[in-house]
Amino acid sequence: MTTLRNVRLTIAYEGTNYAGWQVQPEQSSVQGTIEGAIERLTGETIRIHGAGRTDAGVHAIGQVAHFHTESTIPPERFAPALNRELPKDIIIHDSREVPDEFHARYSAVRKQYRYLIDTAELTPPAMRDLVWRVHGAFDEVTLTEAATRLIGRHDFSAFESKSSPDEDSCRTVQDIVVSRVPSAFGWHENHELLAIAITADGFLYNMVRSIVGTMVEVAQGRWTTDDVTRMLKSRDRSQAGSTAPPHGLCLMWVDYAGADQLHCEAESQEIVP
Amino acid sequence: MTTLRNVRLTIAYEGTNYAGWQVQPEQSSVQGTIEGAIERLTGETIRIHGAGRTDAGVHAIGQVAHFHTESTIPPERFAPALNRELPKDIIIHDSREVPDEFHARYSAVRKQYRYLIDTAELTPPAMRDLVWRVHGAFDEVTLTEAATRLIGRHDFSAFESKSSPDEDSCRTVQDIVVSRVPSAFGWHENHELLAIAITADGFLYNMVRSIVGTMVEVAQGRWTTDDVTRMLKSRDRSQAGSTAPPHGLCLMWVDYAGADQLHCEAESQEIVP
Repeated sequence: MTTLRNVRLTIAYEGTNYAGWQVQPEQSSVQGTIEGAIERLTGETIRIHGAGRTDAGVHAIGQVAHFHTESTIPPERFAPALNRELPKDIIIHDSREVPDEFHARYSAVRKQYRYLIDTAELTPPAMRDLVWRVHGAFDEVTLTEAATRLIGRHDFSAFESKSSPDEDSCRTVQDIVVSRVPSAFGWHENHELLAIAITADGFLYNMVRSIVGTMVEVAQGRWTTDDVTRMLKSRDRSQAGSTAPPHGLCLMWVDYAGADQLHCEAESQEIVP
Repeated sequence: MTTLRNVRLTIAYEGTNYAGWQVQPEQSSVQGTIEGAIERLTGETIRIHGAGRTDAGVHAIGQVAHFHTESTIPPERFAPALNRELPKDIIIHDSREVPDEFHARYSAVRKQYRYLIDTAELTPPAMRDLVWRVHGAFDEVTLTEAATRLIGRHDFSAFESKSSPDEDSCRTVQDIVVSRVPSAFGWHENHELLAIAITADGFLYNMVRSIVGTMVEVAQGRWTTDDVTRMLKSRDRSQAGSTAPPHGLCLMWVDYAGADQLHCEAESQEIVP
C-alpha cells in the first residue's frame, strides 16, 4: 500500500514569459512548468493546484500550490530538488507536508496582491516588465481616499471581468494600502514607485486590475471619489474604469489561518479557550 | 556647408541581452543598437562614444554617450525619437547639445558604479539578472571596514583584469558607500539588498567587480581587512580576491563638472572668483 502525502509549495515567479499560471494547450504556463519538473523528479504525472490563477505577465512572490504524491522524497526536499529542474524565472522557496484536506485555493482565508505603478516620465529598463508606467498629472491623495470606498464586504461585480451570473460576487476587501516604495533601479536614489496592496478574503477575475485601473483614473481626475462608490453600487462592469495591464501585478502571499499546519501548534491552541 | 552638432545622450539599459556596451562582430551590443537607431532616424552612419564600456550583463542607469551629427533634428528631440526606434531594454532619458570638444569618456571627471548583492537564501526571480546572490555567513561590518582601505589615490593594478603595462593604473577612489536598499521585489516588505556604490575619477578594466569580489570574500571571512591593504600594495592581480559576476553591476552616473554645458551658467561662474 502506498501512502499519498499532500505537499504545499510556496512559489515565486516572473510571469513575463508565461501565458499565466494555468495550464493551457500549446502554451507555456507556470503550473505546467512545475508539473513537468515534478514529473522529472518523481516520475509521477500529477496535477498541482494553485491558490491564485494569475494571468499572463502577472508575477508572484508567494503563490501557493499543493499536490498529492506517492514519492518518498522528504517534503522539505522538494523545494531545492525542484529548483534544480526549473527555469530561472520560477523559484520554489518552501515545501512542506500539509494536512490531507488542505487545498491551496479553497483553504485560503486571505490573499494579498500588490500593484506597482511608476509615475516617472520613463521607467528604467530593468523594471519595464514589473511596473506600470502612468503618464501625466497624478493625484495620489485622491487615489488613497477613493481606495477606502472599496474596503469592506461588497458585491464587486463592477470590478469583475467575464462574470458568471451564477456565482457569488461578494468579497471582503480587508485593506487597501497605498504607499511609496523605493525602486532598487530608479533614476536616482529617491526614485519611488507607488504600491497599491489589496488584501481580501478572495478576488474575482481581474478584480485587482480593474480596481487599480479605476483608481488610476481617479488620480488622473477622470472620476471623483463619489464616482467610485456609485460604480461599486452599480454592480455593472461598464460603469467602472479600465483594467490596468497585467505586468504591474504581483501575488504577495496567501494566508491559511493554520489550515496548512500539519500539527496543532501551541500558539494556535492558546487562542482556543 | 553643413554644421556638425555634438549631442550628448544619457542612457539606461538592462545589459542582460547584450554582449556589452561596445560594438563587437556578429553580436548585439548596446552601442551598436543605438547607432542603428540613429541611422534609421537620421540616415547617418555614425559612431557614438560611451563614458564606460560596460561588459555583457552589466546594466546602466546613467551611461553617457556623445556623437556628432549633421541632422537638423533639435538635440532634445533625439531622446523621444530614438526611444521609438529602440528595443525596450534601452532607454535614452535625456539628449542635449554639448560643446564641440565634449567627449563622453575623456571629459568625465567622476563616475559611480553600484553593485547589488542579495544575501537571502534565494533571490526572487524578478531580480535574478539584477543582483548577485551570495551564500552563507556574511559579515557586513568587516566588509564596510575593508572598503575604507581602498579609498584614496592608489595604484589599483591588483584589482585590474588584463592590465597593460604601459598604462597608468593609478585611480582616485573618492568614496565607497555600503548601504542596505529595499528590494521592490523582496520576499517580504523588509527584504533588503546590499548596495556597494563606488565613486572614482576613473576605473580600470573589471576594477569594480574585482573590488566587490574581494570585499565579499572579506565578508565571508576568507580575508582580513589588513589583507586588503596588502593586496592593494602588491599591485598583483593574483594576490587579490575573485571577480564578482557582471549582472550585479550598474553604471549609475557620470559627472563632467560642467564640461557638458553649452553655455556658462550663472551657478558655475559663481565659484570662479
